[in-house]
Amino acid sequence: MNYKPFDPVHRILMGPGPSNIDPRVMKSMSKNLIGHLDPEFIKLMNDIKGLLRYAFKTNNELTFPLSAPGSAGMETCFVNLVEPGDKIIVCINGVFGGRMKENIERCGGYPIVVEDKWGSPVDINKVETALRHNPDAKILAFVHAETSTGVCSDAKELSNLAKSNNCLTIMDSVTSLAGIPIHLDDWKIDAVYSGSQKCLSCPPGLSPVSFSEDALKIVKNRKTKVQSWFMDLSLVMQYWQGGSSRAYHHTAPISAMYALYESLRILKEEGLENTWKRHETAHLELKRGIENLGFSFLVDEESRLPQLNAILLPDKIKPYEAEIRSRLLKEYNLEIGAGLGALSGKIWRIGLMGYGASLNNVKTCVNAIKEVI
Amino acid sequence: MNYKPFDPVHRILMGPGPSNIDPRVMKSMSKNLIGHLDPEFIKLMNDIKGLLRYAFKTNNELTFPLSAPGSAGMETCFVNLVEPGDKIIVCINGVFGGRMKENIERCGGYPIVVEDKWGSPVDINKVETALRHNPDAKILAFVHAETSTGVCSDAKELSNLAKSNNCLTIMDSVTSLAGIPIHLDDWKIDAVYSGSQKCLSCPPGLSPVSFSEDALKIVKNRKTKVQSWFMDLSLVMQYWQGGSSRAYHHTAPISAMYALYESLRILKEEGLENTWKRHETAHLELKRGIENLGFSFLVDEESRLPQLNAILLPDKIKPYEAEIRSRLLKEYNLEIGAGLGALSGKIWRIGLMGYGASLNNVKTCVNAIKEVI
Repeated sequence: MNYKPFDPVHRILMGPGPSNIDPRVMKSMSKNLIGHLDPEFIKLMNDIKGLLRYAFKTNNELTFPLSAPGSAGMETCFVNLVEPGDKIIVCINGVFGGRMKENIERCGGYPIVVEDKWGSPVDINKVETALRHNPDAKILAFVHAETSTGVCSDAKELSNLAKSNNCLTIMDSVTSLAGIPIHLDDWKIDAVYSGSQKCLSCPPGLSPVSFSEDALKIVKNRKTKVQSWFMDLSLVMQYWQGGSSRAYHHTAPISAMYALYESLRILKEEGLENTWKRHETAHLELKRGIENLGFSFLVDEESRLPQLNAILLPDKIKPYEAEIRSRLLKEYNLEIGAGLGALSGKIWRIGLMGYGASLNNVKTCVNAIKEVI
Repeated sequence: MNYKPFDPVHRILMGPGPSNIDPRVMKSMSKNLIGHLDPEFIKLMNDIKGLLRYAFKTNNELTFPLSAPGSAGMETCFVNLVEPGDKIIVCINGVFGGRMKENIERCGGYPIVVEDKWGSPVDINKVETALRHNPDAKILAFVHAETSTGVCSDAKELSNLAKSNNCLTIMDSVTSLAGIPIHLDDWKIDAVYSGSQKCLSCPPGLSPVSFSEDALKIVKNRKTKVQSWFMDLSLVMQYWQGGSSRAYHHTAPISAMYALYESLRILKEEGLENTWKRHETAHLELKRGIENLGFSFLVDEESRLPQLNAILLPDKIKPYEAEIRSRLLKEYNLEIGAGLGALSGKIWRIGLMGYGASLNNVKTCVNAIKEVI
């Protein structure tokens, strides 16, 4: 068999991620490889930690990119903070809340589910009731920005509730980081994970995480060993913290770290607040265009994510939706996302993330959809 | 704080990995990003699977790169094949056998340890005895090429023994893949994991794995759920196997896959056997040079890995060994590896891996050491 050079076409990535990446980030990956214990690399690790603190608005010392995708970031939060028998309140209003529940169960935890309709934000009243009925709950887990539905939940209010009931919080910020405001410290979030391939506009493969002092106390005082060796924070920390000499844990993905560093530099240059504004502006323009074509949104206006637009498909389009997406890809090199799970065949997910959150992309996308439907 | 562009110097990477990478591989990472469910990417995934089968000499359908470093590949093998209470024979003759034991325990397995001196290969007789005394053992786990000591164990013989005792085998091939012969199917290995950053000369971050039909039967007939969601093969398979449409599991590290594909193409072009020979030739030249300087090897000649050379440090050098490595790095841009664990301060580890297994590198390294000591 003949294996030809792989030359991917240029796609406009407007699905739920990965998003297109800045040429500066692309170029950074081809820089000279150095060792994972090289003093120069350790300096880079420190700079990445500093920039991630800026992106999350936190002073948490343990803020770093896990060497695996966002779903491993999720698992890292749960395997370190949940011990067998622990009661965890988990909010499910889409695919990723469901995945959280899977994680809790696989850690031997006991999940108390607060369920909301896909496309609705987490209902604060239901969470309050769940907390009242479960005073022994250890953690409240929720998704800030549900990638499967495009809904934003009120992280600040949820965390407030948790804190006044002596609960820790685990927050999924895979799609929210750098796309909408996150104030980790002000909101008192204890554990958070994200992904490199959404609004940070990096290639997929890394999961920025951050842990509060309260979370680390829990990790330090565990009765049982963390079930995962690879994700055990007490081991990973020895590599990501400390002075100039670090203990080897695993070999970090050097080139991916170059990319993350460059994307975080770009974020800092533009300014976090300006980046949030750019996402909002692109979203409003997409809203105008897509509503003009007769589409509407799955999510109510006040809970919509600018970076992930879930568009309801009219009945006449539903049977052809896969074909239309396929034509957009083939004829326009435009990727938009399908619905996941219960929303498969019922919505499209149009991403406006990071480098891709531009008025140009909006125009291209609206025009292409207009021509194809 | 001012975050400057990161411009790593050019290092000659002759430690235990990462190794230097071919310019073609470096260039490949900067290619256009496409989606993880794009038909073009799914074709690439199939090609990568085909090339990994070539590298492992296997027909195993489930052969793919896990989206995380080698230590996560190790954990994937154990969490999928070990259930609570399972008896596992694990051979420890260095750091990575010890890590295997950690994994077995964290899965609730019961490890039977066969211990050998660091620097010695796994003793076949001891394994035979262990198998005889433990007829209920489910798996024999061993490291083919110990990265911490540079010793090669007889994988074929170990697997033979396991098979005649109805045991599955888990083999660590992180440092062996593409550096020395592996015949996965001939040897009847059931589960294997490797790393991208050693003799494949890719950036770190991916772990090629392969599973036999017998291993998959065990996975399918488990009584308990795999404790890791991210590494659960029954879920990962839905993304890596099947036809043109794949179920989403996690977002694969696209750019890292480009790099792996290109490095595997280079391996195929050179030919696996020629690559093995090149490692051997470079090793013999290093041996000559380093012995001329008065050094000797930790490992007996018949068990030495060409790609990982553990050099015993004379007493007069030991107190200065860290300083010497630091000077090699600063003055010669040459990275060689320190000893790990019990061998810390007692050996150096000189890697000749993949793209870096060249006579030029050997010359540079021997001359630099000669000048500094």
